[in-house]
Amino acid sequence: MEDPQEYYDALRARIDERLACVVERREPVTMYEPVRYVLGGGGKRVRPVLLLVSCEAVGGAIEDAIDAGVAVEILHNFTLVHDDIMDNADLRRGRATVHRKWDANVAILVGDQLIGIAYMCLLRTKNGDIRKLVDVFTQGMIEVCEGQSYDKEFESAPSVTEEEYLMMIGKKTGRLVAMSAELGALIGNGDDRQRVALARYATALGCAFQIQDDLLDVTGDERSFGKCVGGDILEGKKTYLLVSAMNTAEGKDRDILMHVAGRRSPWPGIVEEVTEIYRRLGVIERARERVRQDTESAIRALGDLPPGRGRDMLTWMAGMLLERTS
Amino acid sequence: MEDPQEYYDALRARIDERLACVVERREPVTMYEPVRYVLGGGGKRVRPVLLLVSCEAVGGAIEDAIDAGVAVEILHNFTLVHDDIMDNADLRRGRATVHRKWDANVAILVGDQLIGIAYMCLLRTKNGDIRKLVDVFTQGMIEVCEGQSYDKEFESAPSVTEEEYLMMIGKKTGRLVAMSAELGALIGNGDDRQRVALARYATALGCAFQIQDDLLDVTGDERSFGKCVGGDILEGKKTYLLVSAMNTAEGKDRDILMHVAGRRSPWPGIVEEVTEIYRRLGVIERARERVRQDTESAIRALGDLPPGRGRDMLTWMAGMLLERTS
Repeated sequence: MEDPQEYYDALRARIDERLACVVERREPVTMYEPVRYVLGGGGKRVRPVLLLVSCEAVGGAIEDAIDAGVAVEILHNFTLVHDDIMDNADLRRGRATVHRKWDANVAILVGDQLIGIAYMCLLRTKNGDIRKLVDVFTQGMIEVCEGQSYDKEFESAPSVTEEEYLMMIGKKTGRLVAMSAELGALIGNGDDRQRVALARYATALGCAFQIQDDLLDVTGDERSFGKCVGGDILEGKKTYLLVSAMNTAEGKDRDILMHVAGRRSPWPGIVEEVTEIYRRLGVIERARERVRQDTESAIRALGDLPPGRGRDMLTWMAGMLLERTS
Repeated sequence: MEDPQEYYDALRARIDERLACVVERREPVTMYEPVRYVLGGGGKRVRPVLLLVSCEAVGGAIEDAIDAGVAVEILHNFTLVHDDIMDNADLRRGRATVHRKWDANVAILVGDQLIGIAYMCLLRTKNGDIRKLVDVFTQGMIEVCEGQSYDKEFESAPSVTEEEYLMMIGKKTGRLVAMSAELGALIGNGDDRQRVALARYATALGCAFQIQDDLLDVTGDERSFGKCVGGDILEGKKTYLLVSAMNTAEGKDRDILMHVAGRRSPWPGIVEEVTEIYRRLGVIERARERVRQDTESAIRALGDLPPGRGRDMLTWMAGMLLERTS
């Protein structure tokens, strides 16, 4: 097999190329300049590449799936633009967020428009049952919004169980990842067994991906991670680590975690203290174990797919996400 | 023919009934309670009723078009929720806006979710080419966002021509109205000539509708209008009246209008003064004339449709919108 990283990069380049054409020369400039800024902001393009290789893994052609890949990437970017307003975030992929660079009104409208453009791209797909494709896409979008709603709800909740946390990220992060694989399977005309296998793979992977993200906040390297290490702790974000730690912590540890979860003002050194608590309670190791297990079950699900480059790529991607440092 | 108002009310009731079922018992409550609040807020339901009678006018069955009608009403409500955030509006149909009753984050997310739910409803449509339906719906949504973007752009523009104003409202208001008629024609399997006739009817009507809205701001009765008379003047909103007046005003009149358009703080009695300028320059009469002409050309376009209850209703609706006081 050719080098998987090279193949990944080639697919990513095709997505980036198509993304750049989507809103060329459209007006008004006040809308499409920030839209182009968002879509040109780079990123790993995990979701569209996953869609492309899922299509390939069931015997479909990459070319047939490009428009749908672009559609899921744009939908993902809509969620980022609106979430950044809600989270009051200054930076995204190392650049100013839309509501900082322009203003909140522009960011609201740009997010809305990204949804429209995403559907527009999806509709260019010629292969597969278009009603089914739009239906899966729409259900995905609805669940993502529900996930974001739970996330905001949990922010002010006194406590959140691990189960609730996993349900929330399943919707907020996992759904779009799973949807990408499902759309790929539908466009490639995979049979039901293959579609289920891909959905299981992607759901497990999405979960591993999010917990890995939570882990990177405390173990990541600031430069390669592209955001502030410990940011989740400073913001009191209910991550897998925090939720998991709160379920076992006692005494002073518990008081500190409650302080973080209550989103009260942090003190200097709080990131190190909380990281130390996480380490002591074993939640970092537990999170790593969970990422490992989810990744393994993702790879196991691929057993129902025919051997070939698509399946090899899916296996490789699971490993890549597990080992990533940013 | 039965009483058109009664028939209109019956169709509106069917839409309201279906709207009430759409998000029953869905969770999380933090999302669906405001969604239910928005969808239960009443309104004339002009767009869905227009969709239903357009379907009937080309020989289709009302029942086949209900889901699409609900979809356009929900899409319309998405625009209201997000526009209200951007316009910093306190009231909508006499009730607190979502971002006032909850907060801006909830309103952003609720608007997003309304888009998803709108597509979900549209996809329940069994009749017609679903790819075409979703395409028309998506292009409508994209243009509405563009229209809102122009509207915000014009707010801070020193001057706006009448042509630019009409282009903007054509997208912001007219597009969803025209889209409703087009979807009705597609679901009812109307031929191309009928679809074009309905699109022309609805485009002219949408324009008349918006200019009528601008007129009601200065001539409306406060109670039946449901919002503050002169509100557009106080906000410095670039309405058809203001844009049109600025194109001819001179001397002190022009200074006053520039003050309004510049969104500088209003003084007591400014509404009466500006209304007097509008009257003196003849822009109120001109706007009324334009509404009359657009309404007439809307009704003329109906000549290409077969006679029957659907066409009669469309004719009646044009008159109703022309004569409305709220």
